[in-house]
Amino acid sequence: MLEELKMAVYEANMQLYEMGLAPCTWGNVSGIDRESGLIVIKPSGISYPELMPQKMPVVDMKGNVVEGTLRPSTDTFTHIELYKAFPKIGGVVHTHSKYAVAWSQTGRFIPPYGTTHADFASGPIPCTRELSRAQVEEAYELNTGKVIAECFSGSGMDYEAIPAVLVRFHGPFCWGKDAGEAVANAEVLERIAEMAMNTEMLAINPRIRQVNQYVLEKHFSRKHGKKAYYGQRIQSAEKTE
Amino acid sequence: MLEELKMAVYEANMQLYEMGLAPCTWGNVSGIDRESGLIVIKPSGISYPELMPQKMPVVDMKGNVVEGTLRPSTDTFTHIELYKAFPKIGGVVHTHSKYAVAWSQTGRFIPPYGTTHADFASGPIPCTRELSRAQVEEAYELNTGKVIAECFSGSGMDYEAIPAVLVRFHGPFCWGKDAGEAVANAEVLERIAEMAMNTEMLAINPRIRQVNQYVLEKHFSRKHGKKAYYGQRIQSAEKTE
Amino acid sequence: MLEELKMAVYEANMQLYEMGLAPCTWGNVSGIDRESGLIVIKPSGISYPELMPQKMPVVDMKGNVVEGTLRPSTDTFTHIELYKAFPKIGGVVHTHSKYAVAWSQTGRFIPPYGTTHADFASGPIPCTRELSRAQVEEAYELNTGKVIAECFSGSGMDYEAIPAVLVRFHGPFCWGKDAGEAVANAEVLERIAEMAMNTEMLAINPRIRQVNQYVLEKHFSRKHGKKAYYGQRIQSAEKTE
Amino acid sequence: MLEELKMAVYEANMQLYEMGLAPCTWGNVSGIDRESGLIVIKPSGISYPELMPQKMPVVDMKGNVVEGTLRPSTDTFTHIELYKAFPKIGGVVHTHSKYAVAWSQTGRFIPPYGTTHADFASGPIPCTRELSRAQVEEAYELNTGKVIAECFSGSGMDYEAIPAVLVRFHGPFCWGKDAGEAVANAEVLERIAEMAMNTEMLAINPRIRQVNQYVLEKHFSRKHGKKAYYGQRIQSAEKTE
Repeated sequence: MLEELKMAVYEANMQLYEMGLAPCTWGNVSGIDRESGLIVIKPSGISYPELMPQKMPVVDMKGNVVEGTLRPSTDTFTHIELYKAFPKIGGVVHTHSKYAVAWSQTGRFIPPYGTTHADFASGPIPCTRELSRAQVEEAYELNTGKVIAECFSGSGMDYEAIPAVLVRFHGPFCWGKDAGEAVANAEVLERIAEMAMNTEMLAINPRIRQVNQYVLEKHFSRKHGKKAYYGQRIQSAEKTE
Repeated sequence: MLEELKMAVYEANMQLYEMGLAPCTWGNVSGIDRESGLIVIKPSGISYPELMPQKMPVVDMKGNVVEGTLRPSTDTFTHIELYKAFPKIGGVVHTHSKYAVAWSQTGRFIPPYGTTHADFASGPIPCTRELSRAQVEEAYELNTGKVIAECFSGSGMDYEAIPAVLVRFHGPFCWGKDAGEAVANAEVLERIAEMAMNTEMLAINPRIRQVNQYVLEKHFSRKHGKKAYYGQRIQSAEKTE
Repeated sequence: MLEELKMAVYEANMQLYEMGLAPCTWGNVSGIDRESGLIVIKPSGISYPELMPQKMPVVDMKGNVVEGTLRPSTDTFTHIELYKAFPKIGGVVHTHSKYAVAWSQTGRFIPPYGTTHADFASGPIPCTRELSRAQVEEAYELNTGKVIAECFSGSGMDYEAIPAVLVRFHGPFCWGKDAGEAVANAEVLERIAEMAMNTEMLAINPRIRQVNQYVLEKHFSRKHGKKAYYGQRIQSAEKTE
Repeated sequence: MLEELKMAVYEANMQLYEMGLAPCTWGNVSGIDRESGLIVIKPSGISYPELMPQKMPVVDMKGNVVEGTLRPSTDTFTHIELYKAFPKIGGVVHTHSKYAVAWSQTGRFIPPYGTTHADFASGPIPCTRELSRAQVEEAYELNTGKVIAECFSGSGMDYEAIPAVLVRFHGPFCWGKDAGEAVANAEVLERIAEMAMNTEMLAINPRIRQVNQYVLEKHFSRKHGKKAYYGQRIQSAEKTE
């Protein structure tokens, strides 16, 4: 059943792992077959080297396991809510990649500081509101999905133009037309999250002395121009003389 | 004697090394056989590539070497104190992993900023008080263990729910049901220590301009939607026309 | 046509990728044959592992593809402007390397904080002014090149002595006597961008306690001098006694 | 001539490179034969993969090349001054490793923030005063050595107990009983430089909310204790029931 999708979701999971985006089994990828409404997702707590395509659980849109002996990811209900709320997506990925998690833990949107961000998303990467105590204590994973959906539906943001979200206190979910694109988006998100942090570090801009002009000139001229004496060039010249 | 435990402790030590958590031989893992009260621990100052299972020293709970020709880790008495204070643990690890060390050097507890932390520990990762001059000058390693034990016993914290501590000015000790789990915990600790630092960096939140809206739109539409002209898509279309 | 140049530009592109300076296909290298005025450049949106020397498009100084079936990089017109403005260069590279991008996103010049910088460039690495809305909406890539050229021509800076620039909100362009030197310069730029950021972090210099003197002495003497008891030295001594 | 020393210095140079401490040929290692007063040192500007033991230049204490056809490192006169000033050392290394360079660029001593530092050095890692214009313009490399020697001789610091220095605006020099130990010290210096920077970042300690207690408890209990439902444990239990 769904052998191609299982292989694709398996490969997307392994790619996530090999990219270092899901250390310690902290991450999971799913893909959906829109015709049947069935979802293939990583099994819970299985380490990536142990994964196999044929071991991937298949669940329906209510979360029932319809094939496979392994329990699906605990985050399955979040994935299901995203497939319901975002009808054009075919793959979902959740990671604990370190920079995206750091933004999630501050509750801040990732601001678009430059074109690397703009190549990826049409605006800031949003961060959800926090869940209430009731939402956490009952149907937590389902409510996580609802809070993500609400974050987009209430804001005019387009999930196709912003393929990622930060869940407050938790970490990122990304999506795409299939599992592979969702993973590619998770990689880009992590990179812009890191660049945005570094950009903010540079904006601190403390007072600091630059190198003396005479040291600058000395070092530049040691390596460049007619008086350069770094490397083997001068000796070669001497030799040929 | 204790061949299985020696192999397990050997493997846990090698894993620590391969994960990069114990650079420059700065780290050691031990495991205990609770029945006999004997501990297998890394020998002192031996580089990881030279380690061998049969070379692992065996010590008793008083620190006497009962097997092996190599001196055990200088931190042996700290490990022993932890086995005494925390009766349900079977493995202990000490590292100088860089982010956990940085927290130790500030004397701060690692605050639980998100769910990655919460998946690991039921509260902040504590940092011990500093040792007195007398505690350092005599029986230093034993007193390090005592200060860790005191940090838990005096606070109501549960060592089973918080499997790690930061020793003030020094670095982390972690534990688990066996040596392998202790090492897994050392890895998670290092990751949450890094994420927590990055979270604090983002909380600085200096003033900074975002990219212009017209650049954002230009770049997004260069790659996405009908007017996209990045990649080979347009040419392919032209070809088929 | 231009087989040697194609091979050199191919190799420079692959080197950029292997150095990690162009993740996710975010980067491109070109080289020019000054006699014919023809440029070899990376094709747009092709992943690096798929690149082949014979696939490299050849364009003229007006941007017309004169050989090859793949579309050239979307940044081709920026490269062309640089070859026009800087007549002694033979290679151009654009990356989204993370530290150089962070500086670009702040709009700051990279100050020369030390000799590593001075070995590379005779002064600060400039950041261009931002493009106007009109410059972005029409002939964006060509105008990016014009803004870079203007940044040098209006300032007295020598493009031979400062082989790199940051485009505001975007990222770095570097150049050299050929494609290979341009890539080497992109690597150095990224390293000095990172060092300069770390230098600024250290200039924050918050108040913080140092380790106690008695702990400092204890640890130093544990490893060094006559009373050292770390490692296998003492036991060896005992053995030989 | 000095074949063993050449091999040792060659290997120390390669180790420096493989550790990533000398990117872009920014680094050099030397070793001295105290009997003959001859020094083996890396040739200038040669990339590490091209190095060969028999290519290592041999120089005397006046900087004359007594064997070899390649020019010695431009930093040779700095090494010579260190061998003169520090009579018990047998190896010297200079790098542009990134964290040590950042400290050098701020002109700050690296404070001993913890035991990792104390295991290495008996006090702060000093940073030299800046060279005067005259010292830079004439005999720059020799004067760099003199400023390092002065930094120790004028301060009461013991070069055997503090095997490293930061040259203002430049980067680190380290030493040891031989070339191999000097390189090992360069690695430790870089690691404590990084840890000290991270320690200062954590000392900023901005205000920031922690995760809600109810999320903390939810996530901890999802993975730990009787109500845990992460992983395959529950299903396994169901199966065996």
